[in-house]
Amino acid sequence: MQYGVIMAGGAGTRLWPLSRLGKPKQLLDVIRGKSLLRLSYDRLRGVLPADRIYICTNAAYLDQIRASIPEIPPENLLGEPAGRDTANAVGFAAAVIQKRDKDAVLAFTTADHVIEPVEKFQAALRAAFDVVTQKPEALVTFGIVPTFGHTGLGYVQRGEALPVATNPPSFRVQAFKEKPDKQTADRYVESGRYYWNSGMFVWRADTVLGELQAFLPECHAGYAKIAAAWNTPDRLKVLAEVYPTLRKISIDYAVMEPAAQGKGKSQVVVVEMPIMWIDVGSFPALAETLEVDDHNNSYSATAVEMMDSDDNVIISDDPNHLVCTIGLSDMVVVHTKDATLVCPKGEAQKIKDLVGKIKEKFGEKYL
Amino acid sequence: MQYGVIMAGGAGTRLWPLSRLGKPKQLLDVIRGKSLLRLSYDRLRGVLPADRIYICTNAAYLDQIRASIPEIPPENLLGEPAGRDTANAVGFAAAVIQKRDKDAVLAFTTADHVIEPVEKFQAALRAAFDVVTQKPEALVTFGIVPTFGHTGLGYVQRGEALPVATNPPSFRVQAFKEKPDKQTADRYVESGRYYWNSGMFVWRADTVLGELQAFLPECHAGYAKIAAAWNTPDRLKVLAEVYPTLRKISIDYAVMEPAAQGKGKSQVVVVEMPIMWIDVGSFPALAETLEVDDHNNSYSATAVEMMDSDDNVIISDDPNHLVCTIGLSDMVVVHTKDATLVCPKGEAQKIKDLVGKIKEKFGEKYL
Repeated sequence: MQYGVIMAGGAGTRLWPLSRLGKPKQLLDVIRGKSLLRLSYDRLRGVLPADRIYICTNAAYLDQIRASIPEIPPENLLGEPAGRDTANAVGFAAAVIQKRDKDAVLAFTTADHVIEPVEKFQAALRAAFDVVTQKPEALVTFGIVPTFGHTGLGYVQRGEALPVATNPPSFRVQAFKEKPDKQTADRYVESGRYYWNSGMFVWRADTVLGELQAFLPECHAGYAKIAAAWNTPDRLKVLAEVYPTLRKISIDYAVMEPAAQGKGKSQVVVVEMPIMWIDVGSFPALAETLEVDDHNNSYSATAVEMMDSDDNVIISDDPNHLVCTIGLSDMVVVHTKDATLVCPKGEAQKIKDLVGKIKEKFGEKYL
Repeated sequence: MQYGVIMAGGAGTRLWPLSRLGKPKQLLDVIRGKSLLRLSYDRLRGVLPADRIYICTNAAYLDQIRASIPEIPPENLLGEPAGRDTANAVGFAAAVIQKRDKDAVLAFTTADHVIEPVEKFQAALRAAFDVVTQKPEALVTFGIVPTFGHTGLGYVQRGEALPVATNPPSFRVQAFKEKPDKQTADRYVESGRYYWNSGMFVWRADTVLGELQAFLPECHAGYAKIAAAWNTPDRLKVLAEVYPTLRKISIDYAVMEPAAQGKGKSQVVVVEMPIMWIDVGSFPALAETLEVDDHNNSYSATAVEMMDSDDNVIISDDPNHLVCTIGLSDMVVVHTKDATLVCPKGEAQKIKDLVGKIKEKFGEKYL
C-alpha cells in the first residue's frame, strides 16, 4: 500500500516574530488562512486516505498538530525527541510504517512550500508510485522545473528517460549538484536537463531501509530498535534513548548521492514536477503568496493604512491592531501581540541573527 | 497677587498614535517619565503656590488632568466647551480670576515645550512680574533667544531697553514678525535684535481685559457673562451657551500686534528668555528629548533590539512589547497597544493627513 509522510520538523526562525518556539512556521495560518502543514496534508489527501498519511515532526509540536489537523489518526504522528535531519526522519518513519505494512511504498513530502497547481503535484506523485510499482528498486525524487537560475537550491541532472512512460515524464538521475554560482545556475536552466532538487521522495520502505542499512548501519540499527519497541509500552522510552544518538545527516548526503553514483543497490529516478514552488522561508518569499495592493504592497493584516507607500510587506496577526505607514518603501513590517519587527526587505535574511541576539538579551521570553 | 495659567488646549495629532482623542499630547508621560503638562506645572510651582496656578484646556480633558495633577485645586481647572484659540482662553481665564482678585497679575504659559534650564525660565517670569508691578499698563511677552534661523516660528523685534533694570533684560517691542523665509530668519538671528515669539505672556487681568474690550468687544461681553455666572449654579450652562459663539482668534492677532502698533492703551514689552526650547510637536522633535544610543537611535521603550540600525526614533508605550529593527535608518517606529506607525523621519509631518485617512476608514476607533 501507498503512504505519505510529511516531514515537518523545522522551526522557521526567519519568520520570527510570526513563528515561535511554540508555533513553528508550518503551523502558521498565513497562506490564505491556512497553514503550510494543512496545505501539505490536503495535497496528499487528494491521492491517499487519511489513515495512510503520517506526519514526522519535533515531538514538541505534536499537540498543536493534533489540534490543527484533527482528522489525522493519533498513531500517525511521529514525534522526534530531537532534530536529527532528514536521513533519520526517513529511516524512523520507514521502519515504523514497515511494521504495519511490509510492502509499504512511501511518499516523503515537505511542509515548507506553497505548490501550485496542486493537480500537477498530485499527478507527479501518482507517476512516482507507478515507477516504484514497476521498479521496486527505485528511489524516486521529484525535479521541480526551474523558472530561473536559483543559486540557493541544489539541482538534479537528469539522464535518459525511463523505459516506463509516465506523465509527467521520468528519468534516471545523472547526478545531484550542490548550490551553484549564478553563471552555472543559468547554464543549468538553459540546458533544460536540470531540475531544482525538491527534497521530496517516493520509495518502498524496504528499498530505502536497505540503502540506509548499507550506508548508515548504526543509524539503521537504531531504527530497528525503535520499531521493535513501537507497539510496546517502551515506545517513548526507547525513542528518547535512541533517537538523539543518531548521526545527524540529510537523506541527500546519506543515500541519494551515493546511490546516484551507483554505490548502492537501488536506482535513482527523477519525476518531473512542473509546478510553481515557493519556499515560504522568509518574509519576502511569504509575500509572494499574499494579497497585493495597487502599490505592490503585500499584506496579511486586517487593519492597515498605507499612505504613499510602495513595495512593502506588512503582516499582522492581530485583527484589531492598526498598522500604518507613511512614505515607506521596500520594508518588512511584522506585528504580533508581543513583538514588532521592522527591516528593509534586503535585511530579512538576518532575522536568524536577530533572534540569536534576542535570546541573549531576553532569554526565551520572545522566542 | 500673581497667578499662572497654563494654556493646554491642543490635541497634538502629529504625535499619533501616542496621542489620542482621550490622551492629548500634553498628558503623555514621554519626557523622562513626565508629561509636558506636569513639567509646565512644576516650572510654575517654583514661582507660585498651587492654589494660584490654573489650567485652561478642552473640557474633555479635565478628568484626566485632575488625575494627572491631583494637587491642583479643582476650581482652578478651566474647561473650554470648544476650542476658540488663545485670545478667548486669555479673556476667559482673566475674567474668572479677576472675580477672585481684582488686582490679579497673570502669567500665561504653554504646555507644548520642553524648557531648560528651568531656573532661567523662572528668572524671566519673576522679571516679568517686576515689570508689571512697576508698569501696570505693560503687556509682557517672552522672547526666546534664537539659536538658528527657524522658519516655522514668529519673531519679536525688540526696541529700546526698559528704564527698569531686570535680569534677564526687558525691552519695548518694536514689532511682531510673521514666520520669515530662511534668508530673513538668518538675518534676524545675526542682528541679535529678534527673539522667537514664545506665546507666553504676563499682564494684569484688568490691563489685558481692557485691551480685549477695545479690540474684541463682543468677546469681552461674553467673558463678562461667563464671569457673572461663575459662582452660580448656571456656570456650566452659561459657559456652554457663550463660549462656542466667541470669535476664534489668537491673542497675537487680537491684542499683541495692534497694541505693539500703539493702537491700545497698553505698552508691549519683551523679557528675554535665554532657554533651550523644544516644541514637542512631532516625533523628530520629541526624539531630541529622548535617550540616545551609540548609533544615534533615540528611544523611549523598555524592550528594544536594534541590529545594524542608525538614526532612528523608536517609541513604545508597552513595556512588554519587543520592538526590533534590522538595518534600519532614519525611521520613526511608534508602537502602542492598538496601533503601530512606521515612517521615515522626513515624512512625520504627514501624520495629520494619515490621521484624517484613518478617521475616514475606521471612524474614531483608533483616534
